[in-house]
Amino acid sequence: MSEIANTPKPPYYAVIFTSHRRDRDNDYGKMATCMVELAAQQPGFLGVESARESVGITVSYWADPESIKAWKANAEHIIAQEKGQELWYSEYKTRIAKVERDYGQGLRMKKE
Amino acid sequence: MSEIANTPKPPYYAVIFTSHRRDRDNDYGKMATCMVELAAQQPGFLGVESARESVGITVSYWADPESIKAWKANAEHIIAQEKGQELWYSEYKTRIAKVERDYGQGLRMKKE
Repeated sequence: MSEIANTPKPPYYAVIFTSHRRDRDNDYGKMATCMVELAAQQPGFLGVESARESVGITVSYWADPESIKAWKANAEHIIAQEKGQELWYSEYKTRIAKVERDYGQGLRMKKE
Repeated sequence: MSEIANTPKPPYYAVIFTSHRRDRDNDYGKMATCMVELAAQQPGFLGVESARESVGITVSYWADPESIKAWKANAEHIIAQEKGQELWYSEYKTRIAKVERDYGQGLRMKKE
């Protein structure tokens, strides 16, 4: 599902969200999918990458800090944040970071 | 294994490494563990978070850009980078980002 985000040339912004999930599910998957769909509709959204093992890491990419603030203020997102704090996450950390440079390889290769 | 990194107050730096792995293993696990141990010995290393599903995301945290440069120049790391490009990753992206602010919850809670 999650792929390497096709972000533009830096500078742009990253929101690094790392979390531990509680054992119970409580519709987490539904909420997570819904949040990604909502984020993708926001102005300034550039992409998202996500993986979970013992910790979950979701990195979303944004054009500027204003886009991130607007997303954070989004009503439905706030609801999910509150529910998240109660139900889904035993601990989490959010980091807002300015991507200053990037490099990579093979991003135009076809996936088998 | 991977936990939420206990990073200091911003600003500090994040290296976000996102990758697709080739199917064959080629000692990848051994190399990855070795690289984390090496990174942890570098000056300026603050912590690392890692998870893999369809993409792998490893975020390492560093005190400043100089620490990241020194780590990148580390000979053993260079070897792994070259091997990584040949053997392990079909595609990857590395992003260097300055963490400007962070917030979280429950980070002092005991893990069950």
